[in-house]
Amino acid sequence: MTSGVTAARGFRAAAVEAGIKPGRTDLALLVSDWPCVASGVFTTNLAKASCVLVSAEHLRDGTARAVIVNAGCANAATGRQGMSDTRETAALTAEALGCAARDVLVSSTGVIGVNLPMDKIRAAIPRAVAGLSIEGGAAAAQAIMTTDTKPKEASRRFEINGITMTVGGMAKGAGMIAPALAPLHATMLAYFTTDAAIERPLLDAALLEAVGSTFNRITIDSDTSTNDTAVVLANGASGASVISSRGAAYDAFLGAFRAVSRDLALMMIRDGEGVRRVAEIVVKGARTTEDALRIGRTIADSPLVKTALHGGDPNWGRILAAAGRAGVYFDINTTDVHIGEVFVCENGAARVYDEALAHQAMLADPGRLTVDLHAGEVSESMWMCDLTKEYVDINAHYRT
Amino acid sequence: MTSGVTAARGFRAAAVEAGIKPGRTDLALLVSDWPCVASGVFTTNLAKASCVLVSAEHLRDGTARAVIVNAGCANAATGRQGMSDTRETAALTAEALGCAARDVLVSSTGVIGVNLPMDKIRAAIPRAVAGLSIEGGAAAAQAIMTTDTKPKEASRRFEINGITMTVGGMAKGAGMIAPALAPLHATMLAYFTTDAAIERPLLDAALLEAVGSTFNRITIDSDTSTNDTAVVLANGASGASVISSRGAAYDAFLGAFRAVSRDLALMMIRDGEGVRRVAEIVVKGARTTEDALRIGRTIADSPLVKTALHGGDPNWGRILAAAGRAGVYFDINTTDVHIGEVFVCENGAARVYDEALAHQAMLADPGRLTVDLHAGEVSESMWMCDLTKEYVDINAHYRT
Repeated sequence: MTSGVTAARGFRAAAVEAGIKPGRTDLALLVSDWPCVASGVFTTNLAKASCVLVSAEHLRDGTARAVIVNAGCANAATGRQGMSDTRETAALTAEALGCAARDVLVSSTGVIGVNLPMDKIRAAIPRAVAGLSIEGGAAAAQAIMTTDTKPKEASRRFEINGITMTVGGMAKGAGMIAPALAPLHATMLAYFTTDAAIERPLLDAALLEAVGSTFNRITIDSDTSTNDTAVVLANGASGASVISSRGAAYDAFLGAFRAVSRDLALMMIRDGEGVRRVAEIVVKGARTTEDALRIGRTIADSPLVKTALHGGDPNWGRILAAAGRAGVYFDINTTDVHIGEVFVCENGAARVYDEALAHQAMLADPGRLTVDLHAGEVSESMWMCDLTKEYVDINAHYRT
Repeated sequence: MTSGVTAARGFRAAAVEAGIKPGRTDLALLVSDWPCVASGVFTTNLAKASCVLVSAEHLRDGTARAVIVNAGCANAATGRQGMSDTRETAALTAEALGCAARDVLVSSTGVIGVNLPMDKIRAAIPRAVAGLSIEGGAAAAQAIMTTDTKPKEASRRFEINGITMTVGGMAKGAGMIAPALAPLHATMLAYFTTDAAIERPLLDAALLEAVGSTFNRITIDSDTSTNDTAVVLANGASGASVISSRGAAYDAFLGAFRAVSRDLALMMIRDGEGVRRVAEIVVKGARTTEDALRIGRTIADSPLVKTALHGGDPNWGRILAAAGRAGVYFDINTTDVHIGEVFVCENGAARVYDEALAHQAMLADPGRLTVDLHAGEVSESMWMCDLTKEYVDINAHYRT
């Protein structure tokens, strides 16, 4: 029983040691037995890696069969050589699988500014193809890890007209995580598979809705990567009829898709570099979703709020100060702050509250920090994590 | 010989132990012997402390005589009580000095959401007034410190028509430092004094120019405070004629003012919480100043660039990635990156360079990281610092 990208019918995966990251698997391959309707969203960072550019190009026809992912080298800021290496990777994979190069998507994650070791990739691709299996899903989720400490897999079953279908997924990412995914636009990588059948425009919409409400609402370190990618492959292997309009069938699919995406996004922030504790930032009473998310994101990325979360310090002044610098106008004199259930700040000023209870609420994991602007009806959440000495250790280490 | 706020003629200062921060001085008073033309700029944070609101109000008439500053309590998010406590602090100081309350400016720095201990303030004000002296400038610079490890004082002499004048200043701030000062708009506090005589509109312009090109271009932790304040008092005690238009005299004054402001701003980032190393981010070839500063600030606040600086890791991919997510459009394929004198990235792609030299350049203190967009003629600088475990230690500590 697999719970990741091979949980849906008709998908196989494999992981091999290509030798990019010595002593561990570092190349993953995911393949559908049938052609898939496919959709992808990519980083909005201007410094897009070559794999992002090539994968977006390959998705233009709305179909794909396979995804090949290497860890240890981002193949970003590598110029023409990078583009050429990515195209060769896709072509070699396609050749080994017997499909078109444009049906292969490529992802890379690792150090920026280093070329792919193509000799290693060339040698590894046939081994990956030979190793494809349903059981390979879990191995693939391992192989795409960088500073992750755990593989991230999730799946959900759903039913349409009596036919049970599955959405499965895997993801990686622990640092440089503040996804801002848009059509052709961390390094978070997320791959979703489903045996549902769905038309491309609806798959695009579902991907944006699922990822927009989950991955785009987590931030580990505010640094949006050059390589962020979320891709979904729908192979229709369930035999169900094609979802071709919004309605109950689409909703059932989207519900499962969003649940898998949320599971993976929360696994990602939980496993963020050096993370000890996570919290949901709820911004209530905003006038617009954009206002709420901008304030939520500013709080979530504030080093002072992150260190307060780490210390279990209910220092709500830092929350209020971060909200106040978010670049969104609101009236501080009608703004409330809650730490968990403890009402600490009312109308922009301190309340009398039980400090021990507030400290306990700040130690809750996951925690919940609520800012109510009393300006409108919109409520949105962002997920944040604490800032720890381990984060500094992991990232201040000289690359070698 | 004093080098801070009492370096200019006609200014005296004092520091006393009010008991807000036990065992050290925590209340500073700065007074001019004559009425001053005065100007101030304040935090743009919506959550402005009561002292910011009251000081801005007191500056509306363009004059001031005194500034009283307490450490240990920010008196921010304290509602009506906070406003009333600030007004009482100004009134008591005015009474003891024999001037109008509106000629007293008030600043507070410390924990947010806690009321000023007014009994301690009331008892301390007369002692501060009694202790005023020219030598008190250095003591005042000590008393306003919070997590600063060193007092910050600077001064410059300049000459207009044969008369030598002085601009002096003091500042504090080590965390919650990303000044965004505007008219009525860290907790950085900076106080400038001069014995030059100058009309208010020109003093306003000089303050904006001096602070805008110095304090507004440093960032320690991206968190703009509720209490940031920069104030200048010009008492004309030099006897020189009043600067009433732009020209050579204004330029001489501005030159000295900017130099003092720059000295203090660089002292501040150097003494930032946990800071081991600082670097100048130079963004060249931008189309506009706003573009250059937005990219510079995004790089300067990037946790991954900050940790790379800490580790001496010439990880220029992080610099490029931070530039790419700044929200400013530029062509990554014409973008170059230099670490010190080492040219590491050309046209958005890795160059062949000497890794040992790049490592040395990344260890330079101050370092210099240059991004050249080749899009226009504008070049601007931001000053950043590294992110260390000490920063986490200082800020994750539970308030007690």
